[in-house]
Amino acid sequence: MIKEKLYEGKAKILYPTDDPEIYLAHYKDDATAFNAQKRGQIQGKGEINCTIASALFQWLESLGIPTHYIDQPSAHQMLVCAVQIIPLEVVVRNIAAGSLCKQTGLTEGTILPFPLVEFYLKDDALGDPLLTRDRIMILEVATPAQLEQLQQLALTINQHLIDFFKMCDITLVDFKLEFGLDKENKIRLADEISPDTCRLWDNKEIDPQARILDKDRFRRDLGKIEDAYQDVQQRVLTQIAKLQS
Amino acid sequence: MIKEKLYEGKAKILYPTDDPEIYLAHYKDDATAFNAQKRGQIQGKGEINCTIASALFQWLESLGIPTHYIDQPSAHQMLVCAVQIIPLEVVVRNIAAGSLCKQTGLTEGTILPFPLVEFYLKDDALGDPLLTRDRIMILEVATPAQLEQLQQLALTINQHLIDFFKMCDITLVDFKLEFGLDKENKIRLADEISPDTCRLWDNKEIDPQARILDKDRFRRDLGKIEDAYQDVQQRVLTQIAKLQS
Repeated sequence: MIKEKLYEGKAKILYPTDDPEIYLAHYKDDATAFNAQKRGQIQGKGEINCTIASALFQWLESLGIPTHYIDQPSAHQMLVCAVQIIPLEVVVRNIAAGSLCKQTGLTEGTILPFPLVEFYLKDDALGDPLLTRDRIMILEVATPAQLEQLQQLALTINQHLIDFFKMCDITLVDFKLEFGLDKENKIRLADEISPDTCRLWDNKEIDPQARILDKDRFRRDLGKIEDAYQDVQQRVLTQIAKLQS
Repeated sequence: MIKEKLYEGKAKILYPTDDPEIYLAHYKDDATAFNAQKRGQIQGKGEINCTIASALFQWLESLGIPTHYIDQPSAHQMLVCAVQIIPLEVVVRNIAAGSLCKQTGLTEGTILPFPLVEFYLKDDALGDPLLTRDRIMILEVATPAQLEQLQQLALTINQHLIDFFKMCDITLVDFKLEFGLDKENKIRLADEISPDTCRLWDNKEIDPQARILDKDRFRRDLGKIEDAYQDVQQRVLTQIAKLQS
């Protein structure tokens, strides 16, 4: 039975299920960048991202991080807990790249003195602006207690992911997280973790373009996008299998 | 003896004097907005702003705020302490307006629940980007102790200016401050306080355009710019005279 979609984002469509507590997320091959000014398709991306995100969510759950993940019924579909998304993009940066460099003049590749947790308003019409703590309070998108919890969760997830990707011979440059509130008002990691939402640099490559294994290949027209996404998937699944054995 | 200028900004030229501890600031009639994309002249602005700033600096000094003000040798000239400017624009907002509204979607005129102190990097090439506390630490433009002191100074100055402008029948919407370090590394209020750097609304006008007494008249082509600046000057000088009598 096909139900009407609840919500269509740039990379996923959300459907209701028979259980009001559970949604079905359909991962798309559509790729967008620069606030959807650039659009395209990455063959197989939906399946790859869904598979990587499912593996990482399960692994993070095993480490005590609450996520919205329930099951992956098919390659490009994920059953998730019906959370209410907090309208913040939580970005964690270990190395300067992307908008941080454009906005501040920092050189790409600068190792930051501490992991930088940043909050952006999830609002395409406003171009997802950077928010200070005070602006978050004024806009009332999160309470001070929630903000502190998001900060701590983001830092913990960052340390787990740095360690995990290091075992995959990958440097975790930065990544974007989204969180939601479940029916008990508990904060759960939501959205996805994938080469769409992380900057991942291959430790086996020295060349600053060749090492890129993430959506920057699409943003910058570097080619071999599908190869990079498949490479990440393979390394992640191999590493997860090793950890489970 | 005319000396070579040390620095020319958008609204002022800085000259050395025979005393290396003292600079001469020459206030210009040039007006710029939107990061100098819009340019023009406001007749008499140099003299008005220099006079308003001189009056307010002296008054703030009398309340214990260290400023760079030394003397006003002529209408458009100010002798100032040769401070090293901290490359931050410190903005205090009492009511939502300008870039805060553009960036966050807040409606202009929204009374903020607390005075919002914001820091922007003083860098025209980067468009004076908003900085979070963490970005300030990473860029090393101020130490944590300096930042805390800037925040406290900004809030104290805000309360003094709110009270002062209220006595002038003017609402202080927001304003931009710059600070510098003197030779003892003490933080002093620098730059200027004027209708160029404050949003000032006339309490005697209800019309949202007619009440504007600041550079927004220039930014938005509202006309009667010189009248507004002169009006502010007259009210400020009258109030200062009252306080001194």
